[in-house]
Amino acid sequence: MKNTKQKIIDTAIEIFNDDYSSTLEKVAERSEVTRRTLHRYFTDRSDLLKACQLEMQENCGTSIAKAINSSEDPLMQLEQVLYAGIDCGSKYSFLQKLYQQQDDLSQKKDEGYDAYDDIFSQTMSIILELQQQKVISSNLTLPWISLFLNGIITTTILSSTTGSVARNDIKNFAWYSFSKGIGIDPGNN
Amino acid sequence: MKNTKQKIIDTAIEIFNDDYSSTLEKVAERSEVTRRTLHRYFTDRSDLLKACQLEMQENCGTSIAKAINSSEDPLMQLEQVLYAGIDCGSKYSFLQKLYQQQDDLSQKKDEGYDAYDDIFSQTMSIILELQQQKVISSNLTLPWISLFLNGIITTTILSSTTGSVARNDIKNFAWYSFSKGIGIDPGNN
Repeated sequence: MKNTKQKIIDTAIEIFNDDYSSTLEKVAERSEVTRRTLHRYFTDRSDLLKACQLEMQENCGTSIAKAINSSEDPLMQLEQVLYAGIDCGSKYSFLQKLYQQQDDLSQKKDEGYDAYDDIFSQTMSIILELQQQKVISSNLTLPWISLFLNGIITTTILSSTTGSVARNDIKNFAWYSFSKGIGIDPGNN
Repeated sequence: MKNTKQKIIDTAIEIFNDDYSSTLEKVAERSEVTRRTLHRYFTDRSDLLKACQLEMQENCGTSIAKAINSSEDPLMQLEQVLYAGIDCGSKYSFLQKLYQQQDDLSQKKDEGYDAYDDIFSQTMSIILELQQQKVISSNLTLPWISLFLNGIITTTILSSTTGSVARNDIKNFAWYSFSKGIGIDPGNN
């Protein structure tokens, strides 16, 4: 059985994803606790948001680590990392939007969850390895590829929330545009 | 000489781009008008923001129209549209962020500046034409390509604000990743 604190966090993530302006009142209600109980765990909104952020980092960290471990082939690893990023990004899209406002950097700086930085470095290593193998174009710099990867994830989230792209197409399109956009040619696909 | 209203709008765009949380007080001061004069033209913050938005639509509309008219070749047109979008996006990046929060759609719905819709349709026509000519992959849908174009523009703005990609590289990287990402092969580049 989930403990109360975790239940509040999970509920908050669900509710804020739907509507970021939702009140703590609503979070408490949907978690089936009183407002008073909620405040026993979280002093205020920003405290709850921090907990959601930590939850995201742990959860996404685990998914992306799994993606990396799913294969020995760096190209396959990169593809799986993209898909894991898309799944994570959709699940926590309100946090993504929040970060974007804050110039996208606080995400890495704020919290003490070092594993997240680890995952980031591992992904960068995969990209570097593919660049050395001339699979990824060596004209592009690592920071561009990293921002482009994030950009593709944001685009897929928008495609999905605006409903303008069929759900079944989204991941295919994302990998198509990302892989070609970094110079991976069809022969390698 | 610029009239007072226009001067306030231009100043607001500059200030909000630096720091969106800046006060109207600061906008008035930097525009060299009293707070009272500012309020003669704009009832409140949201009224001023609307004026900035209209200004953006007119200004970007003109730049993108110019980009389209710069060539007869749809591929060249598309490249110039991307560059115009990047320039516009950087100039009005605070508005971009604002829209992203609101699910990216209000931008087109809110205002009566129809020319903006026109530019959007023209860009979509160029993409369709290139798809028919098999220059752009016909596996991708128009909504994906359109979101992807916006995503690339957002990525370039982030590259530029975070300072992680050299200013001279940004447009090259953007066109490289966008053009390849929609299936344009090197032979056509």
